Amino acid sequence: MTLHEITSPANPLIKRLKSLSDKRARREEGLFLGEGLRVCTEALAAGYVPAMLAITPEAEAHPLGQQLVHATRAGGGQAMRVPRDLVSRITGKDNAQGVVAAYPIPDTSLARLERDSAPLWLVADNLRDPGNLGTMLRSCDATGAGGLILLDDCADPFSLEAVRASMGAVFSRQIARAGADAFFAWVRQGAGQVVGAALEGRTVDYRAHRFVAPVFLLMGNEQAGLPEAHVARCDALVRLPMKGTADSLNVAVAAAVLLYAALDQLEPLANGGVSDSLA
Amino acid sequence: MTLHEITSPANPLIKRLKSLSDKRARREEGLFLGEGLRVCTEALAAGYVPAMLAITPEAEAHPLGQQLVHATRAGGGQAMRVPRDLVSRITGKDNAQGVVAAYPIPDTSLARLERDSAPLWLVADNLRDPGNLGTMLRSCDATGAGGLILLDDCADPFSLEAVRASMGAVFSRQIARAGADAFFAWVRQGAGQVVGAALEGRTVDYRAHRFVAPVFLLMGNEQAGLPEAHVARCDALVRLPMKGTADSLNVAVAAAVLLYAALDQLEPLANGGVSDSLA
Repeated sequence: MTLHEITSPANPLIKRLKSLSDKRARREEGLFLGEGLRVCTEALAAGYVPAMLAITPEAEAHPLGQQLVHATRAGGGQAMRVPRDLVSRITGKDNAQGVVAAYPIPDTSLARLERDSAPLWLVADNLRDPGNLGTMLRSCDATGAGGLILLDDCADPFSLEAVRASMGAVFSRQIARAGADAFFAWVRQGAGQVVGAALEGRTVDYRAHRFVAPVFLLMGNEQAGLPEAHVARCDALVRLPMKGTADSLNVAVAAAVLLYAALDQLEPLANGGVSDSLA
Repeated sequence: MTLHEITSPANPLIKRLKSLSDKRARREEGLFLGEGLRVCTEALAAGYVPAMLAITPEAEAHPLGQQLVHATRAGGGQAMRVPRDLVSRITGKDNAQGVVAAYPIPDTSLARLERDSAPLWLVADNLRDPGNLGTMLRSCDATGAGGLILLDDCADPFSLEAVRASMGAVFSRQIARAGADAFFAWVRQGAGQVVGAALEGRTVDYRAHRFVAPVFLLMGNEQAGLPEAHVARCDALVRLPMKGTADSLNVAVAAAVLLYAALDQLEPLANGGVSDSLA
């Protein structure tokens, strides 16, 4: 069975896909965009089946492209063949991928989070940069952290920019959204160490802190950091040494340094200490 | 003496400032843009005097704004008062700062680098994302690394996006650009451990590597990683544990994790090990 072929940017399906770069359309449709053969294949492996799939003839010729087309149809979604410039038009990216797909936005309620499924979690308060959210999801994937809990008024983790920065981790990680009060009530219902990243106050050097799983690592807003009300509810506050003039790090960078520090304590190297790798 | 006041976007000085968001204009003029009262004040402290300064009346009323105006004039530069929407027009940012300034691009030859001035250096090969360069400079500042050496065809560290992501670190850190061969010839003229970040090959877990200052931490391109020719010239290759599906980290994130790991070895915590900060 051949694919429905679309070449006009005025086609309603193309317009509908393109609309998903807008936050309001994502909310109304309950869909978000992923792009690229590798990422969409990883999404499929994680259980995400496209509701809509636009694929170039080149990508369609690839076995993974075929797999995506079949999965989309089997799941009742719409698959269409498009020229590459239409993918560019949908994603707003000059150097477009061969595939763009729309996926159902998952349930992001806290109650759905499987907190026992991972020893590490990131929690972000009022983060404004979608690129930072995506980068943090990517770091969660790398360190085996379960995912990202977004408090209060964060950027949208399902925006194209966040999905892009996550390099597929938006599909492999769990994502929840909650008010801060709801989060603290939920986290105290079970075991869990809430560790805030802070520059000042009763902080300890992150290397002196003993991480106890499950760790919920709480990162503050890019400009303001953590509000006092959150600080007071953390089990511990950790700081990174700051040797420079600016006294700051990118929040996604700070989160990753802390995730790797926690991972090092939870899963230390087998041989223990430092050896010489120059031999 | 009152400031020259400009309100028209068609004014040649405004057009000249705005042109500096373009790479070719930066190269021709030898100037780059910095923005924000805090960042421009830090730049001044680091010895960067504006060749041109556009400042809003509100920022001009601030003592730090006054200081910038005086320094600009004392250095023979042009200071002008502008409405905020002209700053937006220059920087292309809706939510504009009160100050934007043009600075002379510093000499980025390797020979100018003071390699003994810091125990850590970042080296980036063919990095394409200016935001990553800026974030890496910011992490250099935080960890006391001397700065960033850019090999071959990297993005421009003096682009507005890079400067913005650096949060002022572009002014406090040293930046050099060189071909890879020139870099390796230069680095072997003195003491220095070249440590490449890699996913495969004869790598060791980064925690098992003994960092010896001065460390030159070599990071590869966002997609391709380090080329084989560079890998062969490293003293050691380190990898970060990858527990996820995607087997990758953002390059600026990976650089920061390694910088902090190196810093921890070069300047360990006074009390040594891990203590309980929950008490």
